[in-house]
Amino acid sequence: MLPDGVSSFIDKNREIFVSDLMRFLEIPSVSTLSEHEKDVERAAEWILEQFQACRISGRIYPTARHPIVLARSPEVRGAPVLLVYGHYDVQPPDPLEEWKTPPFSPDRRDGCVYARGATDDKGQFLTYIEAVRSVLGAGLELPINLVFLVEGEEEIGSSNLEKFLTDHIAELRADAVAISDSSQFAPGIPAITYGLRGLCYLQLDMQGPRFDLHSGSFGGLIENPAHALATILAKMKNSDGTIALPGFYDDVLPLEQWEREEMASLPLDEEKLGDYLGVSRFTGEPGYSLLERKGARPTLDVNGIWGGFSGEGAKTIIPGKAGAKVSMRLVPNQTPEKITELFQRFVSENTPPGITIKITDLYGANPVLVSRNTAAMRAAERAIEAGFGKKPVFIREGGSIPVVNLIKKHLGQENILLLGWGNPDDGAHSPNERFSLDDFHRGIRSAAALFYEIARG
Amino acid sequence: MLPDGVSSFIDKNREIFVSDLMRFLEIPSVSTLSEHEKDVERAAEWILEQFQACRISGRIYPTARHPIVLARSPEVRGAPVLLVYGHYDVQPPDPLEEWKTPPFSPDRRDGCVYARGATDDKGQFLTYIEAVRSVLGAGLELPINLVFLVEGEEEIGSSNLEKFLTDHIAELRADAVAISDSSQFAPGIPAITYGLRGLCYLQLDMQGPRFDLHSGSFGGLIENPAHALATILAKMKNSDGTIALPGFYDDVLPLEQWEREEMASLPLDEEKLGDYLGVSRFTGEPGYSLLERKGARPTLDVNGIWGGFSGEGAKTIIPGKAGAKVSMRLVPNQTPEKITELFQRFVSENTPPGITIKITDLYGANPVLVSRNTAAMRAAERAIEAGFGKKPVFIREGGSIPVVNLIKKHLGQENILLLGWGNPDDGAHSPNERFSLDDFHRGIRSAAALFYEIARG
Repeated sequence: MLPDGVSSFIDKNREIFVSDLMRFLEIPSVSTLSEHEKDVERAAEWILEQFQACRISGRIYPTARHPIVLARSPEVRGAPVLLVYGHYDVQPPDPLEEWKTPPFSPDRRDGCVYARGATDDKGQFLTYIEAVRSVLGAGLELPINLVFLVEGEEEIGSSNLEKFLTDHIAELRADAVAISDSSQFAPGIPAITYGLRGLCYLQLDMQGPRFDLHSGSFGGLIENPAHALATILAKMKNSDGTIALPGFYDDVLPLEQWEREEMASLPLDEEKLGDYLGVSRFTGEPGYSLLERKGARPTLDVNGIWGGFSGEGAKTIIPGKAGAKVSMRLVPNQTPEKITELFQRFVSENTPPGITIKITDLYGANPVLVSRNTAAMRAAERAIEAGFGKKPVFIREGGSIPVVNLIKKHLGQENILLLGWGNPDDGAHSPNERFSLDDFHRGIRSAAALFYEIARG
Repeated sequence: MLPDGVSSFIDKNREIFVSDLMRFLEIPSVSTLSEHEKDVERAAEWILEQFQACRISGRIYPTARHPIVLARSPEVRGAPVLLVYGHYDVQPPDPLEEWKTPPFSPDRRDGCVYARGATDDKGQFLTYIEAVRSVLGAGLELPINLVFLVEGEEEIGSSNLEKFLTDHIAELRADAVAISDSSQFAPGIPAITYGLRGLCYLQLDMQGPRFDLHSGSFGGLIENPAHALATILAKMKNSDGTIALPGFYDDVLPLEQWEREEMASLPLDEEKLGDYLGVSRFTGEPGYSLLERKGARPTLDVNGIWGGFSGEGAKTIIPGKAGAKVSMRLVPNQTPEKITELFQRFVSENTPPGITIKITDLYGANPVLVSRNTAAMRAAERAIEAGFGKKPVFIREGGSIPVVNLIKKHLGQENILLLGWGNPDDGAHSPNERFSLDDFHRGIRSAAALFYEIARG
């Protein structure tokens, strides 16, 4: 349900909302790079200004690293409380040379805006602010109480969020939580996500000789750390694609039959997906469908690898050191703590003599499944139908949103609504990330409708 | 034999020669990096100026890439001709952060000069020019005819040298060739090198998806090129350290018994070598001694590896591409051509579906053994004794000097004298490369003595 006045305000102000988005996207709030610390702060300030402009009062809370914005709409007595979570930080934009237009100079083309953070998560989160603006712009009062929690560390593991939640439990009490940091199932097939994978992200550094050596003079005498690294990474997977860390699958909760059938019924266009990714063939764990592997089975990926000479031409050295970033996506009931232990043990047991190792824990998140049979979920279904003109499907997503676990754990919240306005091919974490302006518009409509549907109960 | 006047001139002018060397080392003549093209040219010009200053006439010949300097001393009728080869190009200096002083600001400390190229090959080659200066400085005429061949592409495979040699066969005719681009066996144990390994240096590029993907959304569906690369590199070696490319050892000439005995008799200080390299343990092909593995057995090394995210923190991507530089040191009778074929076949057969590969040939050199029973070799032994006060030992070196094969092949030259003035721990190709000023001095003495010993026959 969306009041006519609100609906027409959203339609009339479409362009103004797009220009708000462009301004937000101009801020290079890359949380993982310390050189962007000021930009991350600026993004938090920008958010606060938007809140102030629509009568939502809040403030910026410093943390050990990047600040958190907490804000609240004027009290509506007797109405339910909806907590809206978003993040204003973004992934690093590299490889820069693959962007058609610069990542922080948002470019509008083909009905989309292209910029780092367009879909993940600036564009999706901003829909809630524009929805508030639209209710007020239509001359109405908000039908519910809104609490906004916006952080700047989602892309680096939300490590300061837990303390913040426990310090602010009373202020964060709500009847439901809305998070738009996932996707539709496919363009035109809106979705509610009920499962997220967890994450265990580690860095493995290897040191061989104390500096780079002449490979002619010393080749044949010592372990090459780049080769030792390659060998360990190779051993982490079996030839059939399964993960070889002993015990890795022990805690994995098997998929239920109804879930496998539901996934099988979703209209996945494999050819189109292959074209988008530029791969001629899908591969992965045997015995599971593509959608099962994508959202409901654990994985292991090398996210980065380095060592020795990568410049132009030939340099004949044995590198002194080499390293890799390795991450594993987890499913219920795996935990990053246990997987980290398995990884450490595996690496120790497979490191040749003459090589020293260091493992750094960079990111951890538990996997999660949220309850589908709640009134809040029904309200979200109706809101999406109001915004997109179609009922959503239910999906499990391969990514992780650390806050979901924290909200479950510390706020005891079970009504978590993961409502993706964007699309799987928006290029989150990739060059040329984008957000369809139609989806932005439909997202604003859905967000506004959600206020009314949650209020209705 | 070194005339007293020459000997005392060398002693008296020690400091002047050091300042010449410092100036030469200031030129960042990195041949593999196109941004240093002008510097490489400048180094050639500097060489030519030195020749002109000691009555050696020559010129700079352009090639398809970096120029070659060819020069000749005033004719001494009836005297033999000695061809002296050197190279004025250097390896890239990275990793820059590991240098204690900048690589192209030569720093004098601990009795050494520290700079890229100090030992390889600027310092060692310069001894011949200073030797000429010293003969003339002592008021004498040169006892032999000298031809100098100095190139700027040794560190990138000497690819334009072959054409140059065949175009200038007549001018390069000589009774013996001297090349100081190797090392002593150990500090205070001068050596003549009679064997060099060959080289086959390749780059392997792998492409998976067409850009970096979100590892949450797409992990589990496609081949990760960094993982595929690690797997192929790992497969290239067996668990005992031998090389697994089928056919790799087929053409290897077994070591002869006398050679193994001679190598075993050399006083290698393994503990000191381990300390220098910073490794707690030596490893390598079973059944061969450290010196055999170092100089007389083939090897395979990853010289560099890259792919995906290597910055600070966590970036959850599946890289679009990954690559590695891989080189193999060859021994008689292996050839880079055949090894390249084996490598290509191995990679093709081990590339998983969904990954495309590209192999680029960056450098190739044949292995070589030179005859030890010649009058020129006896002359070199005496010259080293005159310069270092000690008879040299005979060794096989693990590195490659492409010109040696070319000289054998095109000039039919068998009297090739590989006379190393530097030391194995000078750090050629490593950060903080250096050259002992005592060795520089002894090298000048030996070079001058060589002129007289070769003249004596």
